[in-house]
Amino acid sequence: MAYQCFTLDIQDKVAHLVLNRPATLNTMHPVLWRELTDILQMLQRDAPARALVISSTGRHFTAGMALDVFGADSGISLNDGNAGGRANIAPQLTDMQQAFNLIEQLRMPVIAAIHGGCIGGGVDMACACDIRLATADAFFCIQEINIGMTADLGTLQRLPKLIPEGVVHELAYTGRRLPAQRALALGLVNEVFDTQELMVEAALQMAREIAEKPPVAIWGSKQAIHYARDHSTHDALQQMGWLQSGIWRTGNLVEAFLAKQQGRAPEFDDLPPLKSFADGSYELK
Amino acid sequence: MAYQCFTLDIQDKVAHLVLNRPATLNTMHPVLWRELTDILQMLQRDAPARALVISSTGRHFTAGMALDVFGADSGISLNDGNAGGRANIAPQLTDMQQAFNLIEQLRMPVIAAIHGGCIGGGVDMACACDIRLATADAFFCIQEINIGMTADLGTLQRLPKLIPEGVVHELAYTGRRLPAQRALALGLVNEVFDTQELMVEAALQMAREIAEKPPVAIWGSKQAIHYARDHSTHDALQQMGWLQSGIWRTGNLVEAFLAKQQGRAPEFDDLPPLKSFADGSYELK
Amino acid sequence: MAYQCFTLDIQDKVAHLVLNRPATLNTMHPVLWRELTDILQMLQRDAPARALVISSTGRHFTAGMALDVFGADSGISLNDGNAGGRANIAPQLTDMQQAFNLIEQLRMPVIAAIHGGCIGGGVDMACACDIRLATADAFFCIQEINIGMTADLGTLQRLPKLIPEGVVHELAYTGRRLPAQRALALGLVNEVFDTQELMVEAALQMAREIAEKPPVAIWGSKQAIHYARDHSTHDALQQMGWLQSGIWRTGNLVEAFLAKQQGRAPEFDDLPPLKSFADGSYELK
Amino acid sequence: MAYQCFTLDIQDKVAHLVLNRPATLNTMHPVLWRELTDILQMLQRDAPARALVISSTGRHFTAGMALDVFGADSGISLNDGNAGGRANIAPQLTDMQQAFNLIEQLRMPVIAAIHGGCIGGGVDMACACDIRLATADAFFCIQEINIGMTADLGTLQRLPKLIPEGVVHELAYTGRRLPAQRALALGLVNEVFDTQELMVEAALQMAREIAEKPPVAIWGSKQAIHYARDHSTHDALQQMGWLQSGIWRTGNLVEAFLAKQQGRAPEFDDLPPLKSFADGSYELK
Amino acid sequence: MAYQCFTLDIQDKVAHLVLNRPATLNTMHPVLWRELTDILQMLQRDAPARALVISSTGRHFTAGMALDVFGADSGISLNDGNAGGRANIAPQLTDMQQAFNLIEQLRMPVIAAIHGGCIGGGVDMACACDIRLATADAFFCIQEINIGMTADLGTLQRLPKLIPEGVVHELAYTGRRLPAQRALALGLVNEVFDTQELMVEAALQMAREIAEKPPVAIWGSKQAIHYARDHSTHDALQQMGWLQSGIWRTGNLVEAFLAKQQGRAPEFDDLPPLKSFADGSYELK
Amino acid sequence: MAYQCFTLDIQDKVAHLVLNRPATLNTMHPVLWRELTDILQMLQRDAPARALVISSTGRHFTAGMALDVFGADSGISLNDGNAGGRANIAPQLTDMQQAFNLIEQLRMPVIAAIHGGCIGGGVDMACACDIRLATADAFFCIQEINIGMTADLGTLQRLPKLIPEGVVHELAYTGRRLPAQRALALGLVNEVFDTQELMVEAALQMAREIAEKPPVAIWGSKQAIHYARDHSTHDALQQMGWLQSGIWRTGNLVEAFLAKQQGRAPEFDDLPPLKSFADGSYELK
Repeated sequence: MAYQCFTLDIQDKVAHLVLNRPATLNTMHPVLWRELTDILQMLQRDAPARALVISSTGRHFTAGMALDVFGADSGISLNDGNAGGRANIAPQLTDMQQAFNLIEQLRMPVIAAIHGGCIGGGVDMACACDIRLATADAFFCIQEINIGMTADLGTLQRLPKLIPEGVVHELAYTGRRLPAQRALALGLVNEVFDTQELMVEAALQMAREIAEKPPVAIWGSKQAIHYARDHSTHDALQQMGWLQSGIWRTGNLVEAFLAKQQGRAPEFDDLPPLKSFADGSYELK
Repeated sequence: MAYQCFTLDIQDKVAHLVLNRPATLNTMHPVLWRELTDILQMLQRDAPARALVISSTGRHFTAGMALDVFGADSGISLNDGNAGGRANIAPQLTDMQQAFNLIEQLRMPVIAAIHGGCIGGGVDMACACDIRLATADAFFCIQEINIGMTADLGTLQRLPKLIPEGVVHELAYTGRRLPAQRALALGLVNEVFDTQELMVEAALQMAREIAEKPPVAIWGSKQAIHYARDHSTHDALQQMGWLQSGIWRTGNLVEAFLAKQQGRAPEFDDLPPLKSFADGSYELK
Repeated sequence: MAYQCFTLDIQDKVAHLVLNRPATLNTMHPVLWRELTDILQMLQRDAPARALVISSTGRHFTAGMALDVFGADSGISLNDGNAGGRANIAPQLTDMQQAFNLIEQLRMPVIAAIHGGCIGGGVDMACACDIRLATADAFFCIQEINIGMTADLGTLQRLPKLIPEGVVHELAYTGRRLPAQRALALGLVNEVFDTQELMVEAALQMAREIAEKPPVAIWGSKQAIHYARDHSTHDALQQMGWLQSGIWRTGNLVEAFLAKQQGRAPEFDDLPPLKSFADGSYELK
Repeated sequence: MAYQCFTLDIQDKVAHLVLNRPATLNTMHPVLWRELTDILQMLQRDAPARALVISSTGRHFTAGMALDVFGADSGISLNDGNAGGRANIAPQLTDMQQAFNLIEQLRMPVIAAIHGGCIGGGVDMACACDIRLATADAFFCIQEINIGMTADLGTLQRLPKLIPEGVVHELAYTGRRLPAQRALALGLVNEVFDTQELMVEAALQMAREIAEKPPVAIWGSKQAIHYARDHSTHDALQQMGWLQSGIWRTGNLVEAFLAKQQGRAPEFDDLPPLKSFADGSYELK
Repeated sequence: MAYQCFTLDIQDKVAHLVLNRPATLNTMHPVLWRELTDILQMLQRDAPARALVISSTGRHFTAGMALDVFGADSGISLNDGNAGGRANIAPQLTDMQQAFNLIEQLRMPVIAAIHGGCIGGGVDMACACDIRLATADAFFCIQEINIGMTADLGTLQRLPKLIPEGVVHELAYTGRRLPAQRALALGLVNEVFDTQELMVEAALQMAREIAEKPPVAIWGSKQAIHYARDHSTHDALQQMGWLQSGIWRTGNLVEAFLAKQQGRAPEFDDLPPLKSFADGSYELK
Repeated sequence: MAYQCFTLDIQDKVAHLVLNRPATLNTMHPVLWRELTDILQMLQRDAPARALVISSTGRHFTAGMALDVFGADSGISLNDGNAGGRANIAPQLTDMQQAFNLIEQLRMPVIAAIHGGCIGGGVDMACACDIRLATADAFFCIQEINIGMTADLGTLQRLPKLIPEGVVHELAYTGRRLPAQRALALGLVNEVFDTQELMVEAALQMAREIAEKPPVAIWGSKQAIHYARDHSTHDALQQMGWLQSGIWRTGNLVEAFLAKQQGRAPEFDDLPPLKSFADGSYELK
């Protein structure tokens, strides 16, 4: 399938999604928004891959939200003159945030490979990914404050759980750039590369490594880590028990040992597709 | 628009949704599921009404989930033989639960008018409504345990916050029926009526009363009550501040006073429709 | 000390606070607000009593917030035309809510003795008290919705934890009255009396009973109950341990046994006054 | 096995535990404490029954903690004279609370059949049970405040989630008795009986009904209800998914339908015993 | 206004608060405590500035609590010999902690510029600030353990959310010093400077940068970051919606774009002062 | 007492526990599991030491769980073929997790001194310790994913609160090694040493430093830090008040000052042993 803002390539159980509107600095246009949601929902439902790499093209990873489309006919009203419209801001933001929540809910890990500027809405998106790699010239910028508003799509919610809060405060109040090397030192970024090519190759290599593991165990780990971030240790340990009771698979353990013994790569089942009770082609009797 | 399982009637800002498959005891068939979701999303988005009454037809409010449609081609796999399928149970349940969550998230109050049996999935649905009225012969039954399974669509999550936990335990473990009068005494039901006609009329009357109030203030109240149920008093008081800062409308207060002074019914604005950033008919430039 | 809106009487370790502006139906005027705060802070700090009864005079317990004082020079701006003013609503509400939070934080139980109407802000106040008694003609009314706004001083936060949520929804959306007998059945009110005199006497009697117990054990119970309402059972059991480690007093147990053995009333120490580090008359050296 | 303070009888998958020290009003002596813990751990581990009824003998269900054993050589030091001893109160309380937590963690429902006084520690225990039945002459009393201390074994933590908070406050501050009929009206007690015999028979009958259901579905329901009490609806719905992914068993559904079709009682597997990794008779190689 | 322990200077919307009792190493004397509270409340209420820098004088940022003032007449009793006094420790600590909570609640960012020792209570204060800068010779020391007590004014609560827990443990148990460079590497400190002059200038420069942004958007960011630290991502994203519905201001966005277009600095409104309902000069009618 | 898998040495109030099965790479055999639990319970109960160092022998700190003992007669069934067995996974995991929870609950700090590989279950254990030191050649590896399963004994719950989440994701999905130097930079490890001897000596030295402080203040700090990790700042500040009310000891403050004045080491009381109500040698009367 063809997209206007992305290319999507799936090989060897690894999906590679590329932001592909370099002429507009990959700004987040409503079309990009819609396509991203469609792609993530497809990956979630059909599980054609076991890991996802997101990279970009051109000068910047993304310049953030495409504000020029805001206007009288935009999805999100900017009319703040009455309480009804104001009250709608909350559910409409929830709706927009959902696009990045999908990254977090995806049953496979997501690796962001970031070059150039990761700006505004780009930071919201990058924070929702599991792992961030960067080029040496990459930087993060909470651009929202520079254009007079408060970031509201996840940056202020997720970044304080990724890097020390004092740094988040500075970035959020000054709109200054966080360069890749400091991001690496703080642990926001896992590794820094000299060129985008090296970075993307490393991201794909990491994704391939992940794709060799049992998807159900990877998915279980992803769920456990996200749950632990947001809950007490007591609650998270308890959740681990229920989670494991559903995902445990002795066969995977056996296959891992056999494969090692036999000097071959282990083979694990893909995750079955997700089905929806209401989506089947039922007819009333 | 015509539905196979429901009739929907909107008059004087009050929506009346009727389960209308009495021949099958209004069992929850996938088609009913899908139509319910569609209707709730439309009501949420377009806000053509200010209150919703849900009633039913025939012998029972609903006999619960239509289990006969479970099978090889059903949306929800019953195959519990492998870890992949098992692991899918969690997100697939989340997907099903979402239909009833929509009732809770709706920007208008929902009044369930229950006659006869409110059984199995019907209890999950009724618990997600804001207000429950019942006929004298109505009863609630956590039927799931009688067919060998654990209720999983909201009953066990919402009922303990509606009636004393000891009663929930008995209902959940024995599958016994909770009759309307005991439900009234425990506060699960707000009022009990001799006939269905009287009940539905009272429900519509209550809905009309609600429709005369400012929708933004009603919606604010609904959000605050649900939030308080799930959070500490400290957090809920704090949320009230942020919520009020978005929904406060001096004009409504003024209109209420003027109308009273002038001996007329006050007139308040409808909620504006919800828009989605990604749904507009944008084109890339 | 003399108050304009209250009388305060302390006898035998029981404080009796009476709303005493019957001509204005004890509406909550800024002066009443300020005096209430002053009185509660004094009771908290000096602990001249071991239980507090709040009753009222005239036709209604209180008719709620005195809205006629809202205006250009009021403390709380009603100007919702700009974001700065709107943003202030949250901290200003927190400030107002604090008056009723003080009731909850008071180191002694608070018994509300309610006659006639408990309306609007009165419900916010009554819900913050530990125990509610009522006359047969008393009623509760979330009046805010009848004047076009959302209740925001604690009613929507505390009431859902006092009575079943379905009833809260009805009261909040319709502005209907909850009569004393239904309030008794639902447990919002502990007992209903034929006359105000009987009720106030019963409230004072209950307060005297409480005043005979060790204040430190009563205070501990109050803290534990409020904490349990807002936290998980696991967290609340853990808190009980830390709380008890500070308040446990073997001497009280011994005194209770000795007094019983000797056929006399036990005598327990008053709580010592609370001091503030910054309030002493220190001088820099 | 013989116990000093209890009799334990297991028939037809129903366990019946009887407090059997009527001469001492079934006060909670350290020996009773230890035996209760032993019995609950055995029932938890071996699952020889599918439901547990706890009843008692003599004048009172239990007169509460046996305070006469507190002393120089008691397990719990009453020495509050130094910080070390005080600091120990927290973990030592946690240790004592654990006996009643076991009731809540038990993989089968627990029904308390209460006659006469349910006093002090008895209320802590009764609140940890899933269902409470009572005789007409039964009463609940938070006796701790009458002997100068704060209840600390679960009453103040669990009761506010079982009955309206205003009633809990009165009981906790005054030490007054809550009679069975009011407890029934408030939902603390599920049913009231004229005689203890009728009550115990009804409790056993309810237990037998529960024992006919699939134990894994009953246990799942118990876990879900307790979790919902202590968590937000959002978190509880999510937990339901993970829980169900571990306990779902299509076979039980099939068996329930087949049995109904064939006009016979369904047969479900017992829960397998719990094993402990560290308890096997391993030897180092 | 003149203070005994501080100088306060407000220029160009930037407030600069200097601890100015170098002879006593800026120990936290009750007078300092009271003045700090007064100053913060004034800044909060009147919003005469848009950012606050706190720096100090002499050898150390502060040597912590002035313990020499503890005594018979001190605000906080050190008498731990009876339960009443012990029980008071909790509310009295809450009262003291409130001074630093004010820093966190302030509607403008707070930058601590730390030189020399930041000791004992100084760490509690520094952790409550949004951003920390330091000189190369600065160090942090949880001095409390070195004088035999547990830090109780916020260090143990806030530091584990600022730096890795293992480091907090070491500092809290050993009383060792954390030097500026390690604090920088761990993210506790945003930047390290060679001299105090350079640091203070950088702090003021950062504050001026912040003061050029719209105060309502800065305040919104501060609220969102603090909320996210303490709540789940789900709850924090939801709060962002309500928060934004109150603070969103299209005009700021427009002004930012216009100013950029016109090559000038944008101009944004100050936050309006906070008013208190009960503080107006009302008279009863 | 002699152990098969450990040596335990207590000197000068410092306990040193050494994993001592180098021939099997200190894999976590059920016997090791049981002995570890016994030792921790003894240290907790009797408090013969004030700090605990855990180090190891041979090539690796530990190679993780000894999987070869899983089998038909193992404690933890690997049979995932039926719902009963699956349902048991949750409580059985809780039981296993409890061994490491004991480290966290211990009334003294625990310092892990890690050399070589800290693999699989070793990471779960290390994350439960308060402080981690490492040799330059040490590494951490979430080995579970390499053998086809999800780590379930605490790593995924505790590690996201110790190091940035993006790094946790990489380690959990790829099974790659985290070397000591990167662990130091991220704050997982407090210090890195050239040799194991230097590291163990530094660990013991740190433990001796801790042992010189008042144990009750150290324990209070440990409780506060762990509580803060898992709760909101608001809740944690409140807990600090209750905690301090139980552990505050003016005498320790006085002793610290006197000792300093007199140029000698201060002397503080040991924590008294923990007693259990049910463990005394009571007899029924």
